[in-house]
Amino acid sequence: MAKIGFIGLGNMGGPMAANLVKAGHDVTVFDLSETAMETLRAQGATLAKQVSEVCVEADFIVSMLPAGKHVKMIFLGEDGLVNHLDKKTLVIDSSTIDAQSAQDVGKALAQHGIEFVDAPVSGGVAGAAAGTLTFIVGGSHSNFERAKTVLANMGKNIFHAGDIGAGQVAKICNNMLLSILMAGTSEALQLGVDHGLDPKVLSDIMLASSGRNWTLELYNPCPEVLPNVPSSNGYKPGFMVDLMAKDLGLAQQAAQQTNSATPMGALAKNLYNLMQNQGKGSEDFSAIFKLYSEK
Amino acid sequence: MAKIGFIGLGNMGGPMAANLVKAGHDVTVFDLSETAMETLRAQGATLAKQVSEVCVEADFIVSMLPAGKHVKMIFLGEDGLVNHLDKKTLVIDSSTIDAQSAQDVGKALAQHGIEFVDAPVSGGVAGAAAGTLTFIVGGSHSNFERAKTVLANMGKNIFHAGDIGAGQVAKICNNMLLSILMAGTSEALQLGVDHGLDPKVLSDIMLASSGRNWTLELYNPCPEVLPNVPSSNGYKPGFMVDLMAKDLGLAQQAAQQTNSATPMGALAKNLYNLMQNQGKGSEDFSAIFKLYSEK
Amino acid sequence: MAKIGFIGLGNMGGPMAANLVKAGHDVTVFDLSETAMETLRAQGATLAKQVSEVCVEADFIVSMLPAGKHVKMIFLGEDGLVNHLDKKTLVIDSSTIDAQSAQDVGKALAQHGIEFVDAPVSGGVAGAAAGTLTFIVGGSHSNFERAKTVLANMGKNIFHAGDIGAGQVAKICNNMLLSILMAGTSEALQLGVDHGLDPKVLSDIMLASSGRNWTLELYNPCPEVLPNVPSSNGYKPGFMVDLMAKDLGLAQQAAQQTNSATPMGALAKNLYNLMQNQGKGSEDFSAIFKLYSEK
Amino acid sequence: MAKIGFIGLGNMGGPMAANLVKAGHDVTVFDLSETAMETLRAQGATLAKQVSEVCVEADFIVSMLPAGKHVKMIFLGEDGLVNHLDKKTLVIDSSTIDAQSAQDVGKALAQHGIEFVDAPVSGGVAGAAAGTLTFIVGGSHSNFERAKTVLANMGKNIFHAGDIGAGQVAKICNNMLLSILMAGTSEALQLGVDHGLDPKVLSDIMLASSGRNWTLELYNPCPEVLPNVPSSNGYKPGFMVDLMAKDLGLAQQAAQQTNSATPMGALAKNLYNLMQNQGKGSEDFSAIFKLYSEK
Repeated sequence: MAKIGFIGLGNMGGPMAANLVKAGHDVTVFDLSETAMETLRAQGATLAKQVSEVCVEADFIVSMLPAGKHVKMIFLGEDGLVNHLDKKTLVIDSSTIDAQSAQDVGKALAQHGIEFVDAPVSGGVAGAAAGTLTFIVGGSHSNFERAKTVLANMGKNIFHAGDIGAGQVAKICNNMLLSILMAGTSEALQLGVDHGLDPKVLSDIMLASSGRNWTLELYNPCPEVLPNVPSSNGYKPGFMVDLMAKDLGLAQQAAQQTNSATPMGALAKNLYNLMQNQGKGSEDFSAIFKLYSEK
Repeated sequence: MAKIGFIGLGNMGGPMAANLVKAGHDVTVFDLSETAMETLRAQGATLAKQVSEVCVEADFIVSMLPAGKHVKMIFLGEDGLVNHLDKKTLVIDSSTIDAQSAQDVGKALAQHGIEFVDAPVSGGVAGAAAGTLTFIVGGSHSNFERAKTVLANMGKNIFHAGDIGAGQVAKICNNMLLSILMAGTSEALQLGVDHGLDPKVLSDIMLASSGRNWTLELYNPCPEVLPNVPSSNGYKPGFMVDLMAKDLGLAQQAAQQTNSATPMGALAKNLYNLMQNQGKGSEDFSAIFKLYSEK
Repeated sequence: MAKIGFIGLGNMGGPMAANLVKAGHDVTVFDLSETAMETLRAQGATLAKQVSEVCVEADFIVSMLPAGKHVKMIFLGEDGLVNHLDKKTLVIDSSTIDAQSAQDVGKALAQHGIEFVDAPVSGGVAGAAAGTLTFIVGGSHSNFERAKTVLANMGKNIFHAGDIGAGQVAKICNNMLLSILMAGTSEALQLGVDHGLDPKVLSDIMLASSGRNWTLELYNPCPEVLPNVPSSNGYKPGFMVDLMAKDLGLAQQAAQQTNSATPMGALAKNLYNLMQNQGKGSEDFSAIFKLYSEK
Repeated sequence: MAKIGFIGLGNMGGPMAANLVKAGHDVTVFDLSETAMETLRAQGATLAKQVSEVCVEADFIVSMLPAGKHVKMIFLGEDGLVNHLDKKTLVIDSSTIDAQSAQDVGKALAQHGIEFVDAPVSGGVAGAAAGTLTFIVGGSHSNFERAKTVLANMGKNIFHAGDIGAGQVAKICNNMLLSILMAGTSEALQLGVDHGLDPKVLSDIMLASSGRNWTLELYNPCPEVLPNVPSSNGYKPGFMVDLMAKDLGLAQQAAQQTNSATPMGALAKNLYNLMQNQGKGSEDFSAIFKLYSEK
């Protein structure tokens, strides 16, 4: 069993850390929220009095933070962990942040001889609790293999996307595509409904045809086509519009860096921004269907 | 076995009619091209000297024509088939046309007591030859059941989308969604490639994640990811850009009728129009990938 | 002074016909609404008992109807005016309809030796009342010159766009561009406001720079920047969202005919469709600003 | 006359500095290019041996650099000018950079008691040489008034957009709108041409109507409509596609910060990215017309 330092005990990080404890690891945790800390203590984690304590003797550090600036601050900021980490420690950052920040942190740690992988997740709060997350990892092959031994206690599918930063890139490519599938599926379904078709019949036809996609199959945005999906539950999230808009912003930032054309992705992002303008930021991202259907 | 009149022996219609002959039906065919006619004669069909002859004693008429105006002309035009058809005949129009024209023809035939279904296909020339087409049928339940007995000799999946015209609507909804999947998948893959990712690795990750869709799985637009798809064969069609642009035009026409918002579909249509401007109308529709990748 | 038959006495047609009477012409009018007819009688027009009466001895027919199908029906339908018109009569259709219908009517009338121009207007109800409309005319040079003698009594700017149908094309090109200017100006202003700029200051800067355009100068969509525009009057029309959506539909129909790429125009159309979905169809088209600003 | 330090003698900065010399100011310049330095020496400027020398006794510093990172490095980086500047000096940054960087630099200088305005320009190389640039200034009212005394020697129109950063925001709002005008005008003209209209006639009609805008009036993208514009000169720039793409990237970055929806601006950006993909980055930005017209 490994000695693991865990930073960031939010909706995702909390249950992730708990799963590491459950798997028998010796886990020291840190978060600014005392409530979050106490929850983890009750589940068997050791509490760090200050963030640098998570580094002591650690085989692995796992971080789960809101944005690139937090990751940079924790590792590279004033009295950052870079000054406390041991060369034997592998840093695994599971935050969803921009690839550039991941690369910056990786490079700065490397200058101190510390190994790093980015390992953003998908699967949401439910997946974090159940230990069925998907991890998309960027880093060297050997660090990937090493990270896997820990990630396997928190998730089911663990992919190696490429070098440092590639995990972030692959994740936002996937989520940009997901938003396009969701918007496109919503448009196609409502166009059919507007012409008198039954959305369930049309969904079945497209599922058996070339329109088949993840949203149509598992996350139909039209109410009452599938049971147990947000659209059949008042668009209670699930995966919030605000979070999708954040990921689409990261995708556009990445596209910006390489002058990549992403007209469909840019339009999807803007449709989600329009939803935010309408005060729907906290609804599930499949609520984009209402943009088309509410008349 | 049934007596069937078949009109329109093009790339699709020819092999479809041949499959009906093979299935043992008594098939009388008509086309303006003598070559097309002779091919069918060789395969065992009877040739009609003029189009109205296909009606004689027919249990079914199957038509496979380029556009709504042709269907209207053949059935409702000067000396149109409406004047030659018997009330026992079921007319099955498998052309891909606008829903309005399908409804107009259905209504006009109904006034003469003649039954009609629209039954557009997908599956392409290969599916037509192999008898594995998908038919999406619009019409009454009993006519759907009756049409099925014939369509089953030409295709594998036969769906009932709703009333007359619904077959056309469902098909263009599906194809609009397909174009969005294809454009979106192309963007996501190229964004990854621009950041140094291997398109095969990224495809595998997205296939196992929420970006999964028909194009990624069976028709990857990035060369050398999948074997035996147009992108790995110089974008030789397959399903041509020009045909996708035609279907997207029908989708926009349908959206226009009902004031339906389809921003993603409209953008996809325009990206295909830009490809036509670049002289790529005869390439496979997955060549939209080149819009992003060629630099 | 000329003898003029006038068909269609709606919000636009009524005041237009009145201006012809005022100019001293002998005007016979027809409309299905008795109220509209009575208003014109009070203003000095002769009422036709049936539509064909407007043709009697007419030097000009002016028609102002809602859509292509009405124009086709009146002129070419059962007992259509084509059977009642004299070869000396010039038909001027001022309806905003699709170019194809204008060409169809022109061609059918030509087969009976009757001359035709399409002459759609802009300038709205206020311009119709004031006699300051803009007419964009399609037809032969001599017919344009002849039409001008009458149009000059209803409008101020009279353009010759080209052959029959060209008036319609030019009008929808202009209105498509107008919608793009309006949406773009709204986005630019709100982006500035979101960053703390004063919309009036930003408007002044852009008016003096390369962002200058008709909407910024005369029809600013941001409330309280200009007086006496719909945005400063609760977005009371003005030119309704529904009418802009109609014109954008005609533009897309025209683009469809020629496979023309219009990605910006298609997006603008869909943004207006989204506004219709939100129940804003009767607001002024500058209310698209609210799509961006309401948060 | 003032003592001015000038940093950045590129295509724009060179002639701008020369105009300050011509106006009688005592100008000390710095650039990494010796050629650029020698040109200015010949025009009467003093050469700084190292960048910090421009600060000595300076009333004003004017900087004209490629991107935010250069501005940050020069002023705030290792041995940055912040350590060499006097409190009497007003720093005027005329680079086009992201608003955030402008605000960061302004704030950091303020902590040392040094005053700052951002003052991006438009008007291009020709305007820089002729001294007819437009400056859009962000900063306090008094600093704006003070900057104006110097800017007036390099430009004609000098606007006060608001606080620090507002100059940058106003400029990218304007340029985003400009790109939308250019793309929209191109689409409308080509749609007309595709239907047989003369682009000159259509331009005249739209100029007299609600489609009027800066590009149509002064920078028509269709060849041979206007003389002496890039479209009539093989799309030789003028204002390059690559530069427009850069500004549109800054606009999207700004939109990202405030979650502002800019669907039209995002689409325009992506159309310019597609042009870059086609190898047209060095052509004038009006060459977007070719995206529509080349068939």
